[in-house]
Amino acid sequence: MRSATVTFRTSSGDVAVPADLGANLLEVAQQADVAIDAPCGGNGTCGKCRVRVLEGTLESEDALGLSPAAKAAGWYLACKSSIVGDVVVELSDAAAAWQTGLKVADVVGDDDQVWHDTVALLEMEGHWPDWEGDALLIELEPPSTEDTTSDLQRFSDALARTLGVDKPPLVPLGLARALPGLLRENDFKVLCLLRKTKYGPRLIALLPYDSLEVPYALACDIGTTGVSMILIDLMKGTVLASASAGNGQIRYGADIINRIIRQARPGGISRLREAIVDQTLNPLIEAVCKRAGVSSECISHMAIAGNTTMMHLLLGVEADPLRKEPFVPCFYDIEGLRAGDIGLTMPIFAPVYVAPSVGSYVGGDITAGLLPSGLWQSEELRLFVDLGTNGELVFGNNEFLMTCACSAGPAFEGGDIKNGMRAVDGAIEAAIIDAQTLDPHLTVIGGGKPTGICGSGLIDLVSELFRGGAIDGKGRFIAQGRRFSRDVHGIGSYTVAFAEETALGHEVVLTEVDLENFIRAKGAIFSAITVMLDATGFSVTDISRVIVAGGIGSGIDIGNAIAIGLFPDIAQDRYAYLGNTSLIGARAMAQSPRARAKVKEIASGMTYLELSNEPGYMDAFIAACFLPHTDASLFPSSRSA
Amino acid sequence: MRSATVTFRTSSGDVAVPADLGANLLEVAQQADVAIDAPCGGNGTCGKCRVRVLEGTLESEDALGLSPAAKAAGWYLACKSSIVGDVVVELSDAAAAWQTGLKVADVVGDDDQVWHDTVALLEMEGHWPDWEGDALLIELEPPSTEDTTSDLQRFSDALARTLGVDKPPLVPLGLARALPGLLRENDFKVLCLLRKTKYGPRLIALLPYDSLEVPYALACDIGTTGVSMILIDLMKGTVLASASAGNGQIRYGADIINRIIRQARPGGISRLREAIVDQTLNPLIEAVCKRAGVSSECISHMAIAGNTTMMHLLLGVEADPLRKEPFVPCFYDIEGLRAGDIGLTMPIFAPVYVAPSVGSYVGGDITAGLLPSGLWQSEELRLFVDLGTNGELVFGNNEFLMTCACSAGPAFEGGDIKNGMRAVDGAIEAAIIDAQTLDPHLTVIGGGKPTGICGSGLIDLVSELFRGGAIDGKGRFIAQGRRFSRDVHGIGSYTVAFAEETALGHEVVLTEVDLENFIRAKGAIFSAITVMLDATGFSVTDISRVIVAGGIGSGIDIGNAIAIGLFPDIAQDRYAYLGNTSLIGARAMAQSPRARAKVKEIASGMTYLELSNEPGYMDAFIAACFLPHTDASLFPSSRSA
Repeated sequence: MRSATVTFRTSSGDVAVPADLGANLLEVAQQADVAIDAPCGGNGTCGKCRVRVLEGTLESEDALGLSPAAKAAGWYLACKSSIVGDVVVELSDAAAAWQTGLKVADVVGDDDQVWHDTVALLEMEGHWPDWEGDALLIELEPPSTEDTTSDLQRFSDALARTLGVDKPPLVPLGLARALPGLLRENDFKVLCLLRKTKYGPRLIALLPYDSLEVPYALACDIGTTGVSMILIDLMKGTVLASASAGNGQIRYGADIINRIIRQARPGGISRLREAIVDQTLNPLIEAVCKRAGVSSECISHMAIAGNTTMMHLLLGVEADPLRKEPFVPCFYDIEGLRAGDIGLTMPIFAPVYVAPSVGSYVGGDITAGLLPSGLWQSEELRLFVDLGTNGELVFGNNEFLMTCACSAGPAFEGGDIKNGMRAVDGAIEAAIIDAQTLDPHLTVIGGGKPTGICGSGLIDLVSELFRGGAIDGKGRFIAQGRRFSRDVHGIGSYTVAFAEETALGHEVVLTEVDLENFIRAKGAIFSAITVMLDATGFSVTDISRVIVAGGIGSGIDIGNAIAIGLFPDIAQDRYAYLGNTSLIGARAMAQSPRARAKVKEIASGMTYLELSNEPGYMDAFIAACFLPHTDASLFPSSRSA
Repeated sequence: MRSATVTFRTSSGDVAVPADLGANLLEVAQQADVAIDAPCGGNGTCGKCRVRVLEGTLESEDALGLSPAAKAAGWYLACKSSIVGDVVVELSDAAAAWQTGLKVADVVGDDDQVWHDTVALLEMEGHWPDWEGDALLIELEPPSTEDTTSDLQRFSDALARTLGVDKPPLVPLGLARALPGLLRENDFKVLCLLRKTKYGPRLIALLPYDSLEVPYALACDIGTTGVSMILIDLMKGTVLASASAGNGQIRYGADIINRIIRQARPGGISRLREAIVDQTLNPLIEAVCKRAGVSSECISHMAIAGNTTMMHLLLGVEADPLRKEPFVPCFYDIEGLRAGDIGLTMPIFAPVYVAPSVGSYVGGDITAGLLPSGLWQSEELRLFVDLGTNGELVFGNNEFLMTCACSAGPAFEGGDIKNGMRAVDGAIEAAIIDAQTLDPHLTVIGGGKPTGICGSGLIDLVSELFRGGAIDGKGRFIAQGRRFSRDVHGIGSYTVAFAEETALGHEVVLTEVDLENFIRAKGAIFSAITVMLDATGFSVTDISRVIVAGGIGSGIDIGNAIAIGLFPDIAQDRYAYLGNTSLIGARAMAQSPRARAKVKEIASGMTYLELSNEPGYMDAFIAACFLPHTDASLFPSSRSA
């Protein structure tokens, strides 16, 4: 088969790879580890995988996702293009914005109120604290002709004496290897890092006696769209560094169904695993360790929270049965995991704890995320809403917990939205629109020029435009003006920022396609809430508190979210946005075995409601796909206010 | 730096590699994984690393190890040659004979008398049997919309029920990964292979329900020169296949000192580890599994016996302190090893049990090897002699066990001998020499033409030539005839087989240099025996039984060994050659946890005698470096007989 060279011009330089003539360009990119977003999984509908030909040509099918104007400007959809010769392509700005750009945040320290509240909740039940690390200086008598005890025995005996135990902890081979050199270069004095377990202390690392390292742990939230990680000092119980990145699997599809389909193709299991392990988690581990100036060899363990599918893809376990009747996963909970099994760049025997799932679509991000929510301890009824790519709800109190999931799509995390992005620097996270001019006043994360819109910004824009009469209940633009236009297909759009106002060099817009996706997303959440309340025999007025979680962005305006019919129309002071509760729950699991036990207890007490089995769900969903709702009486405070 | 191409012509084809000009040829070969024997460690003295230039040239220093005749014929010593341009070289026959040629033996079955005797010995103490494997068919109810229990939970519950335990064995991630596919392709029926441990059953493998696999174990003896492995059916307790190969580390030196020096050089730890793991053990594992037609994924565990240095090199642990005052190893015993740590091609969590050492030069080959010897159970005094590259002795009974080691050199295994080889096909393992003509009658392993001489053949040749008056007490040829000659340096030699009688195309000879090495080896053993007896206050006549072990070859003639002063001159019927006792001990350790406990018990009860600290040792050694001994009264039955 003849072949050609395909060159991808990316922000980090050119990537040139050989490809067979006739090969699909998106697959060539995926093989070459060039991250091109393809949320629709290569159907030609989402338009996110577009590339521009700089040199050479591509052969391309027509597809819905590309406008004639874009086509005229030299854009192609990678998923619908095949290689006919040497070619140089650049990625679209959308693709660039979705690149898995890793962001290291400032040191969080211990000033996080949600974290302190979570610890307080756990302490009320005696579940906290449970300090897990130890650092011990061990001094040995050097060997002599009279005392030829082996290094390992000498060290183990001294460690057992220091710990006051009969049987010293096992020295794993990786540490035994370092022992002869370490002892002889450090006057037979070594620093041991230990992890406390119910089976007694376990060795994490052996270091020169004057080393300043302590035992560390990692906590991680693996979202379908974004991944966050923190590095914890186990001696002080504080966070040393945090970082986040896009989930490297995004190039294989924005939603879990497309990823499961991709995993089922030949080589898919390792592709998806590499995308999350090698291209996302390991760079994050490196980043937090570098930021904190610590060695990854001193990491004791890691706690991970993520949805059921993410956990299967992470561990290289076939997820295909999850999307097929009767939707049974390989595991809800799994124990005995070690970093080495997964391929994480940590000591190979470091335990990896994962938060248990309770259903195919209610995962460990929810069970861990419930820890800070307090639902499990509250006497009053509370509602927990996680606005991720999947929407998950939990309703209940200290007597029962009912949960369900709905497919909201990635709109709240910026996916399926033309200029959507995650809640990171450059994202419009809040907006106010002048009722007269319909010009927006934007708040951008990081303070610079905008590059896109994140979930909370979207809620504001839609709500303000709706309140200002620029959008009708079906999500169509009904206003005129310099910011409103229609393309050749008749699709209306609103210019949020003109080209000169953005960091992109072109405009940021909100289209009627975006509105449609967004309304479906909010309709899915709201209808799930009402159907679950119906199923339990309660109504919205019974809810004492609504806990909102997820990567939608801390700028979320509850009033606006109610005004568009995302959340029930109850008093705003009953709402609280707790941010990434999954990560906070994972942190508790990393710092306390008793928190891990509590998450398992919470998970085992939850009842899973399969929405698709509920007779009224489809009608409720359709009724909710309107601004604020087809039954306006449910939202007395909307618009009229 | 300019570079050239070096091509090695080997029996398995050409190996061409780039090399810098000025690079040392032996190092180039070692980097390229071309096995060239260098028992002297590159000093230019042993002459084993010679190569012949076929095309191009080499720049070479003069060295003792190469005769002018060999030089004239185009031979070079790789260790003393440097690259000056493109060159093609062929390896010497000696190098070829020492290649790590892997040999798969016929299935051993259960007809080995030494093995049955060992089991009987262990049974007398209640240490046997302890059957360790299990194979269970588990049938599951398929999942349904009503029963969405996860695959892992479903399987674990069924396994716990079948085993009658509350807490089912952990399913390692590697097996969990296979579960969804395995269940769905096999009507939710699977075969589980289990290992019994003191902590309860452990899962080894999950297989289709109609699979015929059972749990297997491996036992392995890692000698400095040769490595042997057997595959055991744990259900029946029988051997399914056996194989042996040269230790792939030979190219880094024939004795342990040279290997430790090589390990201490940059990159040495991984080089030495790769040579034994990737190039020796893994091919052996593949060979025995293939021979028996079984999957290496069903191997439950492995037991390894080897000397202290071999264990350090195998595990990638620095061995350098072993050769430096006060000669302290990193470990005598080490626990918690897993196949994955070592890099063995077996399930990564499969335990690897190693026989404990008792001294820097008395290793697990001896402690495991003592199991079949019965010393630990005998009321009468016994002497155990292991004739390896190091000679190790144990003397004692069920009340005490004293041990010592001496550096015999590799002569008994065919090393340091011009035409020496291991006891494999083509080796002369026995010889009778006509007292008149001084022509030999040879016995060759495998029955074909000879390619070299193994340990037992050497003993016969030296003894017969000495008895026939062709060699004097100092190891010099004093006879004339067509088989006797002297080279330009005056070194005498005896032609054992003329060129046309060998499989090599050139003659097999025994030289005065060989005799000198051999006499030093036998002198080291004999003097160690006498010094250790002195230290315990006993004499040779107190020995009720001498157990001879090691790779010297089953053809050993005890009368000849006594006649040359290797063994004490006591009645021949007190001697028994048990062969590779280290491998038999490892087999017992693989089949029974109680045998493993017994080996640890034996090791902890042994007293180590450091010969170099004994005042009379050096004199005793020098006195023993004579045929049969400078004190002829010690050998009344020799020659005069």
